[in-house]
Amino acid sequence: MRVEVLDTTLRDGAQMTGVSFTLNDKVRIALMLDDLGVDYIEGGWPGSNPKDAEFFKAMRNYSLSHAKLAAFGMTRRKGVSAKDDLNLAAILDSGVEVAVLVGKSWILHVREVLRVSPEDNLDMVYDSIRYLKDHGLRVIFDAEHFYQGFREDPDYALRVVKTAEEAGADTVVLADTNGAMLPHEVYEITGKVVKELRVTVGVHMHNDSGCAVANTIMGVLAGARHVQGTINGLGERTGNADLTQVIPNLMLKLGFKVLRGIDDLRKLKVISRFVYEAAGLNPNPYQPYVGDYAFSHKAGLHVDGVSKVTKAYEHIDPELIGNTRRFVVSELAGSSNILVYLKDLGFNISKEDPRLRRALERIKDLENRGYSFDLAPASAILIALREMGLYNDMLRVEYWKVVSDDDMHVAIVKVNGELGVAEGVGPVHAIDKALRSVASKLFPELNNVKLTDYRVIIPGEVKGTESVVRVLMEFDDGRTRWRTVGVSTSIIKASVEALSDGLNYILMIRNHNTTKVNNTTY
Amino acid sequence: MRVEVLDTTLRDGAQMTGVSFTLNDKVRIALMLDDLGVDYIEGGWPGSNPKDAEFFKAMRNYSLSHAKLAAFGMTRRKGVSAKDDLNLAAILDSGVEVAVLVGKSWILHVREVLRVSPEDNLDMVYDSIRYLKDHGLRVIFDAEHFYQGFREDPDYALRVVKTAEEAGADTVVLADTNGAMLPHEVYEITGKVVKELRVTVGVHMHNDSGCAVANTIMGVLAGARHVQGTINGLGERTGNADLTQVIPNLMLKLGFKVLRGIDDLRKLKVISRFVYEAAGLNPNPYQPYVGDYAFSHKAGLHVDGVSKVTKAYEHIDPELIGNTRRFVVSELAGSSNILVYLKDLGFNISKEDPRLRRALERIKDLENRGYSFDLAPASAILIALREMGLYNDMLRVEYWKVVSDDDMHVAIVKVNGELGVAEGVGPVHAIDKALRSVASKLFPELNNVKLTDYRVIIPGEVKGTESVVRVLMEFDDGRTRWRTVGVSTSIIKASVEALSDGLNYILMIRNHNTTKVNNTTY
Repeated sequence: MRVEVLDTTLRDGAQMTGVSFTLNDKVRIALMLDDLGVDYIEGGWPGSNPKDAEFFKAMRNYSLSHAKLAAFGMTRRKGVSAKDDLNLAAILDSGVEVAVLVGKSWILHVREVLRVSPEDNLDMVYDSIRYLKDHGLRVIFDAEHFYQGFREDPDYALRVVKTAEEAGADTVVLADTNGAMLPHEVYEITGKVVKELRVTVGVHMHNDSGCAVANTIMGVLAGARHVQGTINGLGERTGNADLTQVIPNLMLKLGFKVLRGIDDLRKLKVISRFVYEAAGLNPNPYQPYVGDYAFSHKAGLHVDGVSKVTKAYEHIDPELIGNTRRFVVSELAGSSNILVYLKDLGFNISKEDPRLRRALERIKDLENRGYSFDLAPASAILIALREMGLYNDMLRVEYWKVVSDDDMHVAIVKVNGELGVAEGVGPVHAIDKALRSVASKLFPELNNVKLTDYRVIIPGEVKGTESVVRVLMEFDDGRTRWRTVGVSTSIIKASVEALSDGLNYILMIRNHNTTKVNNTTY
Repeated sequence: MRVEVLDTTLRDGAQMTGVSFTLNDKVRIALMLDDLGVDYIEGGWPGSNPKDAEFFKAMRNYSLSHAKLAAFGMTRRKGVSAKDDLNLAAILDSGVEVAVLVGKSWILHVREVLRVSPEDNLDMVYDSIRYLKDHGLRVIFDAEHFYQGFREDPDYALRVVKTAEEAGADTVVLADTNGAMLPHEVYEITGKVVKELRVTVGVHMHNDSGCAVANTIMGVLAGARHVQGTINGLGERTGNADLTQVIPNLMLKLGFKVLRGIDDLRKLKVISRFVYEAAGLNPNPYQPYVGDYAFSHKAGLHVDGVSKVTKAYEHIDPELIGNTRRFVVSELAGSSNILVYLKDLGFNISKEDPRLRRALERIKDLENRGYSFDLAPASAILIALREMGLYNDMLRVEYWKVVSDDDMHVAIVKVNGELGVAEGVGPVHAIDKALRSVASKLFPELNNVKLTDYRVIIPGEVKGTESVVRVLMEFDDGRTRWRTVGVSTSIIKASVEALSDGLNYILMIRNHNTTKVNNTTY
């Protein structure tokens, strides 16, 4: 049996405290969600946030392979007709085929927050859905606070969702907006509603009781066939149901048909990583299914032992969701990873090569000093190749100096024996310009290389402004995208390192091998 | 009805990858757990880890008010009598009154891992429990991999727990050791076992399916009256059931008697914080019940609503578990958010005050230029107060300049008319030192202010190194923690802004109002 997935990372997820996505990242997340195979991507609330309207505009430049883009909005305001409601107009203006419309179903909210009569609220629900249906949209109706509403006044809560059905809603979603529910109640209430409606019933769960994933599962077991959630469980307060857990639970443990098939599951780990990065959050290594330690095995447990009877120690095969088994005291996982990368680039190194061991030791040592190559394998590849004597940097930064104050930022660099100087809008920009002024004369292909992301965090112990910082840079030259890392107590020094690695990496790629690495993201 | 709690933070929690507790911290956590009112504290595995044996020795210097200390161990090894088993001897040596004994109940593990006959395993379970009972201990028997075992061979799994009961176990705990289960299966299987046994049944859940909390609740609903878990859900791989969620769910939502009463719940937030600190992990601000943002409210409309009817927007009263309501300043916010902050600081501004509207416009304008006040309300408060003419910066940075290269970073600043100069390990450190060299002479209280976090991202359109960057800083002076933001194309300029806001904020707080803001995080 099939269960539809609506992802609301870009709407409910973006409402999480401390999370804000750039327009660029929103587009990239949407494309990744489409590639993952979700059925609906809720892209934002155009009637509330002009930035969300921009997103829908930007998305017109892309065609999605499977997913449908959905815009979120509220039922019309009291005393305003649907056709005059700005919020509904914004949904139509966004140009989507699917609307997610939220309405009140808890009598307390109708009376105390909306301050309208129960009948007026039903009219608001009916009119709004009818209006969008008349304009040819598919309508998913989210009944806000449904479960708490049902607990207080089941008749009224049911009248609301039946009104939505009568008005033509294609799907009726029961929301636990406050995250108040426990699994047994969700099962019971959802089951009652499924019996009363003919349209597809969905569930939308928040995690305030720590049960969002379980509640979603129980909703499906009670007959729901549409689930809403977000990547990594982003969302208001404690978040929404985490789709990276809901989807594998439904597919691998309950045999439901979700996404386009089992192969899509392998994309979960990467999309989880990317969403954390875009949200400015550190990945949770302990996250079920996709966390780095989700399949870790403690010291003493033999590799062979686990490989023989994996089912004795692992609830699922980690490869299914793009994750890997990790042995806490073993570097085996590390060495096979880097070998895969090197092979991809055309370097055929034997696993027994002593240079490989040396390179891995160097990488390990750097990791202890604050480097992280998870998100910046390009730097790890360069380090390994240098250590193995297989590559010498084509671009060598011999000296740099920056002078910076409130008004001006100037940098001097010496690259491959030549001096360059530039003024920039900031110290890193000045260095970048000075460096490229020399480098692009030597290697014109660098003119296509753009810096597409730049992030700084303190990876280790926080010692105020004395802390070691880690700079992550992402580059794109129109064919390949790659990421590098630099670490130092000086943010400029770390930036210079990541920058020169970024340029050296693409020079190595383009000169060593020009066919195999197109469209590969490192 | 009462449900017993066994906390295994110090045993299962300590097995989490990346977590290690010092002996001192273990003792402090044990004392806090006793104060919280848990029934059992599983302190370690003395037969496996000499450090755990030390802990039990150290605990002899303390008397606990309510909790009983328990030592963990395995059933005797095959071919060794109970009295000669070193692991059982270590439990006795630890001097505890309670043993938690783990034994196999999944036939796969008996055959492939233990490599003994099914009957031999039953003997190992029986002998080990009998031996400890004969020495006067209370025995809690943990049936490892019980649920997966029951799924494969229910008769054998049941024989194991019945053997434990016959041997005199006081409590039989069903463990989902791989975290494989979903809530409905836990309910079904636990219910069957409860019917078959006379002793108290307990549950021990892992989070690999993201359902540890829900599974624990379902176990209790099926008749279990003993729950095992850890503070913050620490534990192997993805962790154990998080007691900071299990306990309030059982007490506040299901009416079970847990701990010594409702007042104990208020200690949850503090113990959660302390365990994170001792484990060397960052607190999860999105954690249900105890997270900093668990009761945050973001949208402006919402804030009005929350003040009107809290039960419409909060699943429980945050005060019950020692947490507080929080209003987040953001682009979605109306004026109500900032008013709450200002009121907290003792500024009573009317909602109609025209200066307030001007301040909000300024904040909104800055948000469009890349600022984000979600995580840095201290900056928003300063901006609002300045805009309303209620505060002039006590610290004014009039000029700064940095000279930086690979080897040296020097900064000159002019603050309140005075020059300062310093060398640092990086440009921001140099500025920080130069600024404080002047500022701390003027305001000695700034000596206590530490920078506790520093992050940089590109908030808007990525234009390579020309991009606007956003710097977030977190400060702590031992009484208060606060966060500020700076935005510029220059990472140094943005850092100077966040830094001077950070110092100005605490000067404003300490000079304007010294009582209301202690222990408040902004």
